[in-house]
Amino acid sequence: MAKHKIFIPDWIHKAPEPGSYRSVFKYGDPEGFKHPNERLFQELKKTFNLSDEDFRKKETTGIEKVELNIPSKLDKKIIEKINQISGKENTSVTEYDRLKYSTGQTVEEHMKLRRKITEKITDLVVHPRNKMEIQEIVDLCNKNKTPVYVYGGGSSVNFGFYPEKRGITLVLSTHMNKVLEVNEINQTATVEAGILGPAFENALNNAPEKSGCKKRFTCGHFPQSFEYSSIGGWIVTLGSGQQSSYYGDAADLVLSLEVVTPKGTFKTLDYPATATGPKILEVIKGSEGAFGIVVEVTWKIFRYIPENRKYFGFIFHNWESVVNASREISQGEFGMPAVFRISDPEETHHGLKLYGIEGTVFDKIMAFRGYKPEERCLFIGTADGSTSFTKNIKKQVKRICRKHGAMYLTPYPAKKWEPGRYRDPYLKEDLMDYGILIDTLETSVNWDSVHTVHQKVREFIKSRPLTICLTHASHFYPQGTNLYFIYIIKENDIEAYKEFQKGIIQKITESGGSLSHHHGVGRMISPWMEQHLGKQQMEILMALKKHFDPNNIMNPGGLFNT
Amino acid sequence: MAKHKIFIPDWIHKAPEPGSYRSVFKYGDPEGFKHPNERLFQELKKTFNLSDEDFRKKETTGIEKVELNIPSKLDKKIIEKINQISGKENTSVTEYDRLKYSTGQTVEEHMKLRRKITEKITDLVVHPRNKMEIQEIVDLCNKNKTPVYVYGGGSSVNFGFYPEKRGITLVLSTHMNKVLEVNEINQTATVEAGILGPAFENALNNAPEKSGCKKRFTCGHFPQSFEYSSIGGWIVTLGSGQQSSYYGDAADLVLSLEVVTPKGTFKTLDYPATATGPKILEVIKGSEGAFGIVVEVTWKIFRYIPENRKYFGFIFHNWESVVNASREISQGEFGMPAVFRISDPEETHHGLKLYGIEGTVFDKIMAFRGYKPEERCLFIGTADGSTSFTKNIKKQVKRICRKHGAMYLTPYPAKKWEPGRYRDPYLKEDLMDYGILIDTLETSVNWDSVHTVHQKVREFIKSRPLTICLTHASHFYPQGTNLYFIYIIKENDIEAYKEFQKGIIQKITESGGSLSHHHGVGRMISPWMEQHLGKQQMEILMALKKHFDPNNIMNPGGLFNT
Repeated sequence: MAKHKIFIPDWIHKAPEPGSYRSVFKYGDPEGFKHPNERLFQELKKTFNLSDEDFRKKETTGIEKVELNIPSKLDKKIIEKINQISGKENTSVTEYDRLKYSTGQTVEEHMKLRRKITEKITDLVVHPRNKMEIQEIVDLCNKNKTPVYVYGGGSSVNFGFYPEKRGITLVLSTHMNKVLEVNEINQTATVEAGILGPAFENALNNAPEKSGCKKRFTCGHFPQSFEYSSIGGWIVTLGSGQQSSYYGDAADLVLSLEVVTPKGTFKTLDYPATATGPKILEVIKGSEGAFGIVVEVTWKIFRYIPENRKYFGFIFHNWESVVNASREISQGEFGMPAVFRISDPEETHHGLKLYGIEGTVFDKIMAFRGYKPEERCLFIGTADGSTSFTKNIKKQVKRICRKHGAMYLTPYPAKKWEPGRYRDPYLKEDLMDYGILIDTLETSVNWDSVHTVHQKVREFIKSRPLTICLTHASHFYPQGTNLYFIYIIKENDIEAYKEFQKGIIQKITESGGSLSHHHGVGRMISPWMEQHLGKQQMEILMALKKHFDPNNIMNPGGLFNT
Repeated sequence: MAKHKIFIPDWIHKAPEPGSYRSVFKYGDPEGFKHPNERLFQELKKTFNLSDEDFRKKETTGIEKVELNIPSKLDKKIIEKINQISGKENTSVTEYDRLKYSTGQTVEEHMKLRRKITEKITDLVVHPRNKMEIQEIVDLCNKNKTPVYVYGGGSSVNFGFYPEKRGITLVLSTHMNKVLEVNEINQTATVEAGILGPAFENALNNAPEKSGCKKRFTCGHFPQSFEYSSIGGWIVTLGSGQQSSYYGDAADLVLSLEVVTPKGTFKTLDYPATATGPKILEVIKGSEGAFGIVVEVTWKIFRYIPENRKYFGFIFHNWESVVNASREISQGEFGMPAVFRISDPEETHHGLKLYGIEGTVFDKIMAFRGYKPEERCLFIGTADGSTSFTKNIKKQVKRICRKHGAMYLTPYPAKKWEPGRYRDPYLKEDLMDYGILIDTLETSVNWDSVHTVHQKVREFIKSRPLTICLTHASHFYPQGTNLYFIYIIKENDIEAYKEFQKGIIQKITESGGSLSHHHGVGRMISPWMEQHLGKQQMEILMALKKHFDPNNIMNPGGLFNT
């Protein structure tokens, strides 16, 4: 019998042309790709009733050159002054740059740019060199009522820096990315807010060579966007890393910060704890540029001791038992795993493919022992910390998982997951080339509402025909966890997509989840904020807004939707 | 040779007469006492150049009956309305009650009341029965611009509820002390804010019997004032318990709360984490009644497993080595001890007496091994949590302490310390009967400033002749710790005492410590707040104040000193 050659779609494996729409919306590294593997490709065809034929021709690619006709509306005198402040070489009014630094990573933006639809773009891009320049620019903009947006790593998934009222966009990652101090005694690092994850982590891992420290350190914060998000962004959007169950969320990891506001620049107290009134630091955390611009951060750092890391993985009979085990671990008072990730049956189905379990001896044993497809659930994890601590965590986790009927899968699946942990966003471009959208929404829940929220949201998502919905929980606390919904649909209609997304958000909040666990609010979520917080609490935020920014120049249209 | 009978002062060991000044200022249980033991008594005589003779006659006792002439200034109509709201049986305008619920636990107040000096007292005492009544009263007071203070457990050491502008005082502990829910799934307990420590802990320890839970729980928060402080007070003053290094400070332990403000009543979000803008909960924490009144609290609870508790104690050669070991433990990533307490040489000198080490075989071995009096430093601790976790902590702590030259003292000193942990405040009344003042001030520090702050503050305190100064650190973080200064002086002049206290506060902040680690601000510390926070940050707090309380009726003269 002749072997048929397996069809592989012609996934784009080339950096986008400079100046193209694709170069604007492509995530991360222009040379970075993660093509759907054979298993996922087969799954997509099956789900969406597609054949190889449907993957012979791309629907939209965005390879066209950006050609807009949206002149900058900014007063020439203001541009001139900003040129003086930051240097002409550090500003741009080209339409391409203005579009690029107005664009985040929402599916909606990608759909539009693939169709050459551009909406509002900033009027001026500025790459400030230091915090004094930022204060000068904010003062100038405040005087002239010019809106100011901040672009950190550009990975917002909710229009977090969308220039709703046009104005200027400050790009913090270009120059303001320096490590100012690694303080080994206090275990803190002070950095400029525009530094991206890898540079920060690299400086800490190499603290002996770079800062004369005795020890190596880690920042402990590894969101999926790690490579393309800034430390300032982590804080103002209240982000969480993939090891947050041990290290804490961004909100726990910042010790103090310096922020530039229309009311001036200040640095918050940097004591490890202090009982001197409500903490100003807390007011800035999560403020998404609406109060001011975080320019410097002092971050709590940890020992970098990867040799102590333990890996583990388990298969459970069902979602209920993996949730029960996770709760027992989270409330077990023996320390927390770092990576701690449980997948519901549909995600497990894909995870077993992706982490290379399918078809292995594990697969056979699982089947033999009665872990049924479409029911079974995957748990992968790691433990970080001192040797004795990580050893004990692994031991206790194993004990609890076994008690809940799980089978141990060795470190294999967690080790298989780890190297690709930042790569998933690259899938999006390939899928969208063929009209398939992959998008995520996430929420936080208390333990007693995890099943209700999971069921209701999943039910809504699956009520749309031909829809994949993968759910995991990956940030754990004694009081609850998060739920992360990944949905994959075939959809070409932007409005239909938006309606579906709105429906999911509405369902999340109706069923008892928070509006966001770690993605922040942005223009996308802000319409739900008052309903979520209640009028009185919204008014407190508005009072702060009015105090910091009476002229509403700081990221207008973002967090506050005004 | 005839044995001389040892002289023991006639320490008062009788509940104060009802209606006396002493009954107003006496700490805690009217029948509670902790008389100085023989060793401390000898030490006091030595330090202050006193003889037994000086302890034959008391200087001030406050046993006189309270007789004031300070009529309530409150409008009769308002009193009438409040009587209607809360019931006449739950209000009082007697001078005794008004004085009692205006009085905290500062040395200054005690000195004054012993001399029949009374300053401002509240005009009406109200014991509200529920949160709806509080909202009605706050609305009424807001309309009439009547100041409102809150008395929880009454243990403020900084005039936290002093009625600077007179008005009404709400006593929350009388009726609003119920446990509303113990949620075993989420590991939370929801209670009325006036509940005191023992009732709360008792309900949690007995959750199976009282709430039908499967497990027993603990609140994890055990400040020295535990028996006479309320959960609402813990939160609005940002308190810390003696086991905070493991369980966290009050600020870490509250999940959500309900608060009544002149702008209305609201309940904050109760997700374990959420990225929906700056957290309103954080705005209320530490607000010391200046924004509103916390009426209900949802608290994070822990497993109650005292059988797992490990105890340990060590003697170190000096302060530097015990600080180094503490830092290594705090940054060791194997979990934290619960009680974690290190004493400087002067406190160690007293601690060894108090914890029964002096004169034992340990004492001889210590001397033999070269742990010198006036240099050596004591460390006592416990570990809480699951068995394997506490066992490992004890093992790691031992390893680190030995590395830093310490000698293990067995669980003995920690076990000796534990039963008397809430009793020290009772010492104050005996000493003050003879004109000796025992007072405390405390601060938080980063690791790299612990020695500077300790030395400078101690130097200042010791520059006063005949002064005892004991210092310990008892709340640990990877980034730093606190310093708790206990000073004992003989002083009869109120102004001289106040000047000395001001000098210490000034020295703390000058040398780099925070104004308070866990006692809060109150009228006593508030004059330093703007200097400490800076004008811009103070204005942020003022903006919030203005939003919540435009008429400045909520605890005026407290946190904001206005």
